[in-house]
Amino acid sequence: MDTIVTPSAPTVTTGPLPASRKVYATPDAAPDLRVPLREIELSSPLEPPVRVYDTTGPYTDTDVAIDVRKGLAQTRRAWVLERGGVEEYAGRAIQPIDNGNVKDSVLRPFPQAQQPLRGIDGKPITQFEWARAGVITKEMIYVAARENLGRKQVLDGAEARLADGESFGAALPAFITPEFVRQEIAAGRAIIPANINHSELEPMIIGRNFLVKINANIGNSAVSSSMEEEVEKMVWAIRWGADTVMDLSTGRNIHDTREWIVRNAPVPIGTVPIYQALEKVGGDPTKLSWEVFRDTLIEQAEQGVDYFTIHAGVRLAHVPLTASRVTGIVSRGGSMMAQWCLTEHRESFLYEHFGDICDIMRKYDVSFSLGDGLRPGCNADANDAAQFAELETLGELTRVAWDKGCQVMIEGPGHVPMHKIKANMDKQLRECGEAPFYTLGPLVTDIAPGYDHITSGIGAAMIGWFGTAMLCYVTPKEHLGLPDRDDVKVGVITYKIAAHAADLAKGHPAARLRDDALSRARFDFRWRDQFNLSLDPATAEKFHDETMPKEAHKTA
Amino acid sequence: MDTIVTPSAPTVTTGPLPASRKVYATPDAAPDLRVPLREIELSSPLEPPVRVYDTTGPYTDTDVAIDVRKGLAQTRRAWVLERGGVEEYAGRAIQPIDNGNVKDSVLRPFPQAQQPLRGIDGKPITQFEWARAGVITKEMIYVAARENLGRKQVLDGAEARLADGESFGAALPAFITPEFVRQEIAAGRAIIPANINHSELEPMIIGRNFLVKINANIGNSAVSSSMEEEVEKMVWAIRWGADTVMDLSTGRNIHDTREWIVRNAPVPIGTVPIYQALEKVGGDPTKLSWEVFRDTLIEQAEQGVDYFTIHAGVRLAHVPLTASRVTGIVSRGGSMMAQWCLTEHRESFLYEHFGDICDIMRKYDVSFSLGDGLRPGCNADANDAAQFAELETLGELTRVAWDKGCQVMIEGPGHVPMHKIKANMDKQLRECGEAPFYTLGPLVTDIAPGYDHITSGIGAAMIGWFGTAMLCYVTPKEHLGLPDRDDVKVGVITYKIAAHAADLAKGHPAARLRDDALSRARFDFRWRDQFNLSLDPATAEKFHDETMPKEAHKTA
Repeated sequence: MDTIVTPSAPTVTTGPLPASRKVYATPDAAPDLRVPLREIELSSPLEPPVRVYDTTGPYTDTDVAIDVRKGLAQTRRAWVLERGGVEEYAGRAIQPIDNGNVKDSVLRPFPQAQQPLRGIDGKPITQFEWARAGVITKEMIYVAARENLGRKQVLDGAEARLADGESFGAALPAFITPEFVRQEIAAGRAIIPANINHSELEPMIIGRNFLVKINANIGNSAVSSSMEEEVEKMVWAIRWGADTVMDLSTGRNIHDTREWIVRNAPVPIGTVPIYQALEKVGGDPTKLSWEVFRDTLIEQAEQGVDYFTIHAGVRLAHVPLTASRVTGIVSRGGSMMAQWCLTEHRESFLYEHFGDICDIMRKYDVSFSLGDGLRPGCNADANDAAQFAELETLGELTRVAWDKGCQVMIEGPGHVPMHKIKANMDKQLRECGEAPFYTLGPLVTDIAPGYDHITSGIGAAMIGWFGTAMLCYVTPKEHLGLPDRDDVKVGVITYKIAAHAADLAKGHPAARLRDDALSRARFDFRWRDQFNLSLDPATAEKFHDETMPKEAHKTA
Repeated sequence: MDTIVTPSAPTVTTGPLPASRKVYATPDAAPDLRVPLREIELSSPLEPPVRVYDTTGPYTDTDVAIDVRKGLAQTRRAWVLERGGVEEYAGRAIQPIDNGNVKDSVLRPFPQAQQPLRGIDGKPITQFEWARAGVITKEMIYVAARENLGRKQVLDGAEARLADGESFGAALPAFITPEFVRQEIAAGRAIIPANINHSELEPMIIGRNFLVKINANIGNSAVSSSMEEEVEKMVWAIRWGADTVMDLSTGRNIHDTREWIVRNAPVPIGTVPIYQALEKVGGDPTKLSWEVFRDTLIEQAEQGVDYFTIHAGVRLAHVPLTASRVTGIVSRGGSMMAQWCLTEHRESFLYEHFGDICDIMRKYDVSFSLGDGLRPGCNADANDAAQFAELETLGELTRVAWDKGCQVMIEGPGHVPMHKIKANMDKQLRECGEAPFYTLGPLVTDIAPGYDHITSGIGAAMIGWFGTAMLCYVTPKEHLGLPDRDDVKVGVITYKIAAHAADLAKGHPAARLRDDALSRARFDFRWRDQFNLSLDPATAEKFHDETMPKEAHKTA
């Protein structure tokens, strides 16, 4: 069984997955690093333990005491300080508006305050700048070891598996070296979302020559839950495999909620700053301004948010292109900016101040996630003039951001029928200079609300195969309501399936090891091993037990 | 809400889906036919009702009284008799072994007995033979109207939608005429599984130039449920969209169970006759013989089974090709035949008597579903020598069956990573002369037991797009246990998503109408219409209500 220890404090899920233990690899290039992996022990003496990529952070390490009021260990701060080019400073004072002007008694500031870091002008700060300067950072060494699952050399048969795959022009290597990571980042083909103020981070890489990653969205509800519950949503999502988490919270205590999440997050945290900016102007998009937005960027950058969705591609001239659509503009950020542009009748402040935005994000190494505010909201609107015009603008902005020294990925749709998916990937690679693509689904039909994790999982597997670097999950509640705990789990596992299927099809040299180990367990009727190797051991065991509950049926 | 009326007798689910009513089209070529459709009424005066393909049979027609002890109306018997070439005869006497030698008190024979029909030598019997003879049957007229959703002429924009799609060499017409159906059947590219003894059937067509279809497997449990419960499994599967149902029952009362199912089935019923033959020889595959098998074929053909899975492609020389596999032979029928071949050290009686099998199946117009007994049981074994050698043999057998006048489809895998799926489709088309492909999934990764409806739904959508004519569903319980009612529903809906996504991608001229209607409802916040247009209205509404339960939230 899946042993979940949930003590009264901390109120987050801890403890290892079944038959699993946390192990740490120590890269030769930086033996002080401890790169986490999960090792699944098998019952057959003929079967070595299976190592799998581990997103779960210290929460599954039995040797780590978790206290969400203290946050995770700030291991990474030393790496940032030792390579220099940064300074501690007082930081922006937290204002009542940051938390929706709630009464002091309702505020829940994170107990441990610290001074933020920012880059010093004229020195490299971002992973992109270090990579371009020829410097291999600890983050790069870390992700290389992580992608190799701790292996120190090329896996037997790696070349054959690569040759057997189809990667559509990607160039997965048989073995990931730190130098390869540096080159990919310098080329803009990969990013390590890693704000210098997110010291709790276990770095990960997003790029099409690496394992396909997945993101889970969380957000606090209007009826505010406790901060521990907000942290638990993140912990729960990474337990099942989310590589990054976007905090889409709105409403009150938004600043404090984010602080609690970042301080307890071993994965990169993404946000959509315009959501908080909108809160600050009372919910009226036409009242948004560069000043409010700028201030919000700095506020969130100081907290350690690793990537920002910025909808700077919604240009005034694009808006009329959506007039004949079936579902208009469905992106929340996109519709806010479109409304602003139409009201002001000029280009959005995001587009006009894009260089300024870059300067702020560079100073903290916040990565861009250039938002697709004009993504199609139904199959009928897929690949239309509005969507592709925005994508071309995102390509233009990618080059601006690179020139400014920033890391960049590009968001993609949405709702797209199967035969139009590849055109999205091909155009994105062409327009955006191979910057990583980060897509929502896409959903391949509109007729299955309640099952949109599946309609989108189909599209996600395909676009992941074609080259998308990170897949944003969709839960069964998409279009209908707020996901609960079970929905988050189903969404994450569906997307792990999609990402893994993509890795297999690309010919990733090690992806099939887990499939093969599970298939051998299946052939041998080693049920217990089959459960333990699966993405969701507890559910597999439960389903099995409904028909054959006896323990003897699990090992025979 | 989904109004399900479940009276004490009959114990099957009846009543229409929400906002839906059964309508019947009457084709000009045969105005006596009543071709069922479902019409979904919408709340906006600007929106016409949406007609959708309807697999649910009379169970959702409020004008039909259902009594499972009487079976459905035998409308089709007159069509068969009027075109001639058949005779009534006494039929094979039911033997105790047919029902596993259970005591008389346990037998549950279907209350209404009838004399079976069989073809008279020298006359056309099968749809294939009629088609080749240039005759358009009522079944062909019926399916043409059904595929057109009752439309009498080409839909506006049909040509543009076809041009916008990608069908990989399929040739979907803008409008389906009875003559087109005849041509496709004559060419072997499509089948209408329609045993002359299945008089309750609402004919449907399987071929890559038609809507993609799905099959659901059902089977009685060892702990025998009542006959009404067995019928309900079929009724439940077709309620959610199963186009055909395979009865994979084993154990006692197997003959009677099948009789109850066929007499109450408006959809084609498929079986794997070797399963019952194995029961008759006490479960030992080496005791199987042509005589027992032959007798079982006649028994089931007289009952009205519409298609038989026949594993005649497992040849003696293929078996050693599986020796180095990770999961050997996973098909139940395939492993039985392999064991038989190895024990006898000769070709299987299925292969040696294939001509005789054709002669029997032709006489009742039972379609072949040529089984892939050597399908891969894991990604590692996909597209290997054993699998493809069998597929080549299936191509050889297809031509034999066609020469004998039979309708044929071909079963396909199984477990296949995404990049190897298309090779399956292409080889099947080439080897089997474009006979319809009928695939299980394929599952695109092995690591998600408990979620194999999703791992397989991804592969199913893709291979459906590439040209597979019918997709065999997989439930969440695959590899783990027996599916319950909820599992069957989730499996069917997942496969409706896959099939519909394939239709959309192929550019089917009418497929997108439902997506567009639902998307307009979404854009207008017509929640009630959104639920009613979805594949599972009750679930969509339930999910919505967890966040926004008020009625006002559904219409605003």
